Amino acid sequence: MTKEIFVQMALKSWNIQIKNATKFFDSVDDASLSREIAPGKNTIGYLLGHLIAVNDGMIALFSLGNRQYAHLDEAYVKNPDKLGTEKPDSAGLLSEWKKSNEQLSAYFENMSPEDWFGKHTAMTDQDLISDPGRNKLSVLLNRTNHVSYHLGQLVLAGN
Amino acid sequence: MTKEIFVQMALKSWNIQIKNATKFFDSVDDASLSREIAPGKNTIGYLLGHLIAVNDGMIALFSLGNRQYAHLDEAYVKNPDKLGTEKPDSAGLLSEWKKSNEQLSAYFENMSPEDWFGKHTAMTDQDLISDPGRNKLSVLLNRTNHVSYHLGQLVLAGN
Repeated sequence: MTKEIFVQMALKSWNIQIKNATKFFDSVDDASLSREIAPGKNTIGYLLGHLIAVNDGMIALFSLGNRQYAHLDEAYVKNPDKLGTEKPDSAGLLSEWKKSNEQLSAYFENMSPEDWFGKHTAMTDQDLISDPGRNKLSVLLNRTNHVSYHLGQLVLAGN
Repeated sequence: MTKEIFVQMALKSWNIQIKNATKFFDSVDDASLSREIAPGKNTIGYLLGHLIAVNDGMIALFSLGNRQYAHLDEAYVKNPDKLGTEKPDSAGLLSEWKKSNEQLSAYFENMSPEDWFGKHTAMTDQDLISDPGRNKLSVLLNRTNHVSYHLGQLVLAGN
């Protein structure tokens, strides 16, 4: 029971940030993706691809299935914006944002509290014994903060 | 036991964001407080006062004691930057940042898991029965995201 409450709280926190980010992305169009959040800083399009790819990474980290957006890693995670790295599919990213979140929500809804408190693929059984708070749910908390962090930047470039 | 783990996870997430924000504030000086995070947007000093005051609000919301920074609310929470509202003590805010976090840490360390899962002062007993996930710990998760959100903005004005 209490475990379920914790999981619901963390998912609620996640959903609020995704909802706020979606509200922002709904307010811009493809032409806005090249706009910088501040002079010389990341573009809206880069942060959009970055968030999709990083969040999608949880599918692999939680052993939920096959990642759908690993092809975005090179341009939007491994490399910074403006290095001339080709940005694939940037025009379609706004619709992929919603699709990617629907996929994640569907996966998350099927996870039991025990799943959430279990280890993820980047750690060992021993890691979980040493630090039970290092689990899938802690990754979700981190990713939630990560969305907030970039959303704070994105709103600076809003309409 | 699991309740304790979740409290530890939420506090760890909070501490990481506070540590990262402290790293940023350690990198600037009083002269930098008037620098804008982006042209025409909030200044570093405004966001510093804003975070101190909003975080300090948890002392009242959690019935922990008397707030120490309520005098900052008018200039840094109730009003936006640049309205000409006088900003009190802006020169001393960098040292107050650390002091305010030490106070919060001391309070948080003395809270039991039962405290964290109890209602805060802005809700009724019935609210907690209707939604047990609406508790003090959920406020901490929100405030953690709030620090992240503004930290994402602050780093844009970094040295």
